Amino acid sequence: MKTIVEYSQIIEEAIKSLNLPIERLGGLYSPIVYGMSEGGKRLRPVLALMACEAFGKSYEESVKAGVALEMYHNFTLLHDDVMDNSDMRRGRPTVHRKWDANTAILSGDTMLTLATKLVMNVDDSILRDVLDTFNQMSIDVFEGQQMDMDFESRDDVSLDEYMTMITGKTSALLGCAAKIGAIVAGCSKQDAESMYRFGVALGLAFQIQDDYLDVYGDEATFGKPIGGDILNNKKTFLMLSALQADAEGDNKLSQTMQMSPSVAKIDAVREIYNSLGIPEICRKAIVEFSKEANDMIQSTSMCEEGKTMFKNLVENLVGRTR
Amino acid sequence: MKTIVEYSQIIEEAIKSLNLPIERLGGLYSPIVYGMSEGGKRLRPVLALMACEAFGKSYEESVKAGVALEMYHNFTLLHDDVMDNSDMRRGRPTVHRKWDANTAILSGDTMLTLATKLVMNVDDSILRDVLDTFNQMSIDVFEGQQMDMDFESRDDVSLDEYMTMITGKTSALLGCAAKIGAIVAGCSKQDAESMYRFGVALGLAFQIQDDYLDVYGDEATFGKPIGGDILNNKKTFLMLSALQADAEGDNKLSQTMQMSPSVAKIDAVREIYNSLGIPEICRKAIVEFSKEANDMIQSTSMCEEGKTMFKNLVENLVGRTR
Repeated sequence: MKTIVEYSQIIEEAIKSLNLPIERLGGLYSPIVYGMSEGGKRLRPVLALMACEAFGKSYEESVKAGVALEMYHNFTLLHDDVMDNSDMRRGRPTVHRKWDANTAILSGDTMLTLATKLVMNVDDSILRDVLDTFNQMSIDVFEGQQMDMDFESRDDVSLDEYMTMITGKTSALLGCAAKIGAIVAGCSKQDAESMYRFGVALGLAFQIQDDYLDVYGDEATFGKPIGGDILNNKKTFLMLSALQADAEGDNKLSQTMQMSPSVAKIDAVREIYNSLGIPEICRKAIVEFSKEANDMIQSTSMCEEGKTMFKNLVENLVGRTR
Repeated sequence: MKTIVEYSQIIEEAIKSLNLPIERLGGLYSPIVYGMSEGGKRLRPVLALMACEAFGKSYEESVKAGVALEMYHNFTLLHDDVMDNSDMRRGRPTVHRKWDANTAILSGDTMLTLATKLVMNVDDSILRDVLDTFNQMSIDVFEGQQMDMDFESRDDVSLDEYMTMITGKTSALLGCAAKIGAIVAGCSKQDAESMYRFGVALGLAFQIQDDYLDVYGDEATFGKPIGGDILNNKKTFLMLSALQADAEGDNKLSQTMQMSPSVAKIDAVREIYNSLGIPEICRKAIVEFSKEANDMIQSTSMCEEGKTMFKNLVENLVGRTR
């Protein structure tokens, strides 16, 4: 097997080789090329390529499906940035800011169809299985996004509902990526399901860590300002865990949430989180989901090298608490 | 074979039987149910069902694929209405007006994936062929929409470019519908291609007629105010044909297009169209594309009853000049 960095580079090259017809129709395709460049770790396709090799086939069999997953991921970013009216993404203007909302909508739509076309680059014998996995993931992602939007106007969101939401919005695509890589390699039905559950658990650990770092992270390492979720009263794992604990106490958090956005508010909420033991609750949850992810990997029939690589990947991704 | 009205009713029932989970996630699925209701003729699925039976299989084999095409069509309407900022559609508020733009974007995205899921309800032996046809149609539609948007800020659009645009934006889905119905029935590769070209020619005739009726139609029959395209200086078949003819003349049209929107402007532009013989050019083009559509049908190996039904359908759809 190759290293994660090598898989990542292979995907980078495959993305550059897409040769989208920007000369013929730049208005449609340039924003796609822009959205697909500067993509960071390429985590989703890397999961697919790793799974494919860990189950005994060459990564080459899954490169196009891998690019499909990255295309899908970036499609959701284009549309999410319109819906959230976000100006910046990965240190650059978002597509809807660099061009306009209509461009982000239509180029995003095109990316969804291009992703479907790309993921079809598999044997006929597994085509339906791969597409069923891909389409179900897509529905899960949309449902997760809808729940996230619904949460904004609700003040009775439960922690359970939050977990369902991030299972769709964040985890489903990771599960889908690991599963499709494994299906391409011809793994058993049971192993495919384990790989899906691996990706979901990894995604949950990852999202809770992201929520945690937004409050307790180091600004330089985290890559965005700390405390944004608190300022926006965003329903996160921390906020909902704290509200649950606080409801049995003096409801101090609900009052503090009424404060207008300020550094003082961030400090006050963080202080309440500390007094309720939220950091420890987060760390426990992250460890629990990381363990589940790893257990799923170990339960499969993939090669030992693969098991070690996936174990290390989980540790690298969700071992960060600053 | 059944009548067009019967095929249309079958689709209506199939749409009602979709049972989308509006109780579980109304924010996402209610706009889809709303968008899919009150859909008029259901032309696209009707083409699929007719083609399927004309080539010898029961319509039942193509009902879900037919619903997929209607779902796709309505997905494009949801997003187009956001992009055009349209308030009304089929006499009702558009989704982005009844709910909001974010809802129209996300529910629209969901419809695209649901359409892909639905169109997969075919035999494994033709799955790739059907999906390739569907995905290529989708790319053609997006490219057509992009060209249409690009045209707004250009004043050098040629009639050729316009035909390419409407081939994507309007015709590709009709061609896809007829072709998929035929593929489901197990037709030959050549017949499938002829059915695609039939749908494209029908779409071109239909679009030119629509452009014509916007200037010369009867308001009550046409269903929307006459002259809208002229008021907006929209690049239509009439406008571009007239500009081409006028360029060899005195450029009177270009000057008249500078007039501010008014009934006088509509009358003045219509007068120029009349003097340049545009109504006759339209009628000729409609007849030509109708003939091509019918020729394509007659060239296939479908049953005689099917040929007659398709011939009548073309006449009914594009025989209207008021």
